[in-house]
Amino acid sequence: MDRGLGIDLGGTNVRAAVVDRSTGALMAVQREPLVDRSPEAVTAVTVGVVRAAAKAAGTDPSALGRVGCGVAGQCLGDTGTVINAPNLGWRDVPFGPMLAKALGGAVRMVNDLSAAAWGELQFGAARGASDVALVFVGSGVGCGLILGGQLHQGAGGIAGELGHTKVQTESGGVAPRRCGCGELGCLEAYLGGVALAGRVREELGRGAVSSIRDRVEGGLGRVGAAAVEAAYVQGDTYAVALWEELGELLGMAIANLITLLNPARVVLGGGVLSGCPSLVEIATRWVQSATSRSALAQVTLVPSRLGDDAGVIGAAILPGR
Amino acid sequence: MDRGLGIDLGGTNVRAAVVDRSTGALMAVQREPLVDRSPEAVTAVTVGVVRAAAKAAGTDPSALGRVGCGVAGQCLGDTGTVINAPNLGWRDVPFGPMLAKALGGAVRMVNDLSAAAWGELQFGAARGASDVALVFVGSGVGCGLILGGQLHQGAGGIAGELGHTKVQTESGGVAPRRCGCGELGCLEAYLGGVALAGRVREELGRGAVSSIRDRVEGGLGRVGAAAVEAAYVQGDTYAVALWEELGELLGMAIANLITLLNPARVVLGGGVLSGCPSLVEIATRWVQSATSRSALAQVTLVPSRLGDDAGVIGAAILPGR
Repeated sequence: MDRGLGIDLGGTNVRAAVVDRSTGALMAVQREPLVDRSPEAVTAVTVGVVRAAAKAAGTDPSALGRVGCGVAGQCLGDTGTVINAPNLGWRDVPFGPMLAKALGGAVRMVNDLSAAAWGELQFGAARGASDVALVFVGSGVGCGLILGGQLHQGAGGIAGELGHTKVQTESGGVAPRRCGCGELGCLEAYLGGVALAGRVREELGRGAVSSIRDRVEGGLGRVGAAAVEAAYVQGDTYAVALWEELGELLGMAIANLITLLNPARVVLGGGVLSGCPSLVEIATRWVQSATSRSALAQVTLVPSRLGDDAGVIGAAILPGR
Repeated sequence: MDRGLGIDLGGTNVRAAVVDRSTGALMAVQREPLVDRSPEAVTAVTVGVVRAAAKAAGTDPSALGRVGCGVAGQCLGDTGTVINAPNLGWRDVPFGPMLAKALGGAVRMVNDLSAAAWGELQFGAARGASDVALVFVGSGVGCGLILGGQLHQGAGGIAGELGHTKVQTESGGVAPRRCGCGELGCLEAYLGGVALAGRVREELGRGAVSSIRDRVEGGLGRVGAAAVEAAYVQGDTYAVALWEELGELLGMAIANLITLLNPARVVLGGGVLSGCPSLVEIATRWVQSATSRSALAQVTLVPSRLGDDAGVIGAAILPGR
């Protein structure tokens, strides 16, 4: 059996899995939380989960060939250097070479959504397509692109930053919201789960009327997209207005991506999208009305099929060196 | 010498050129106006300019191998069928096969801006880059994409429709303008030379105060982007407001394209951009302020180097079958 090893390095956990390359099936999975996020500590924890996953699959890391690693951050081409990973607090960390040295074998680093898009392409919701965008809305907003059958990483390996395209400017009459990245008006500053929860807390704290307040046990600190979705379904005025606003922003961003790139498939993933069908429905209406007719006729929007496993599966079967 | 033959099929003219494939130099060029735009008549005129160009270069079309043809319209993958070419009034015309039969040799059809982007990549302003966007503003707004060193045509061969991405929606408080394509709020409905001239005529006709009125000899029917640019330079209030509005729309569209695709080079071409440096300057300011920092650091904006010849040169040297 042809097996590969994939790693999904997030801001709070690292997962490693042994994957059957011919079916995408997970043979063994190991996960560890990240307490110390220094590159050295993360390397050590990652080596641990890699060895444990290999052992659980009855093999050895060295028998699995090159390891693929998706990271929630920007990677510099094929160098393995992580340019920027906000959740890890990393800038210019040569994690690929560090891990390769510790494991005694080759490592390929890519952005986690590129890995997830590759996984969905090979064994998930994007099978059979050559031009695919994975749009992911979880705590942040991201995108993985497969173009012409290849992972599109761009000139510096940082393509796919849909979450940092701008959806609001000063001239719009409404002050654009500030994103976690420091810039103004990014899509992520509106749709990302962290930003969204912060905004709802802030607006309810200032006295906005909504049943969301009664829905969250444990106070406003626990508010999130799921509470807004539940309130929307009950016709809550605040939630309806918020979902209409955010559904338009997301739908227009996806519509323009489709018009520009002419993908065959757009895969929707991440906790906010999988947990908020009403938001997805509003966004889909905007995609249908705002995408260029000819490009719309050639695309389908589908939910992620591999879910949280897409990244680790994609990483295990990455193409190329 | 390795030579190729390229065709640039626009709405009013067809050009054919014999091109030195190793230098991009034009060895011979022929042009004919299109009077009858029926596919049969255009095929006949095209065969005529192809033979004349080959003869002027001292050769025969059959000695030049496969012919490349860029058309101002959408092409269906490698089939050679032109799905939609508004300026020619064509829908689903199998022009590639028709021309191939008439010439007795292979023909590859692509969108004219894809051809132009390929020309700029090989011998023009995009040399040495692997990820390039050609943004063209002439009578319309278009875009050719080179991604990972390959022409990006998308799932159905219609990628690059930057001109039909939406920049205004009903919910913005201002009614979006209707595009020549029939849809609302397209970038081309604002920036395209035809739409722009129509809007200025309409607004001045309704009494807007501007020195543009005095600049155009022969009445408002002759108004165009050049007159707005000249008025802007003199501080004309109407022209300043218009260029500020349009420069923001263009700049934001380019900024978001860069953030999403991470190109190394954005090439600016077309009559409106080459003739209106002030508009380009405003758009460039928006690109600088709205592009994600990391993607901005890796891109340069440059003017087209091959100008009107980019399409015919690119068509002559297209890769693949």
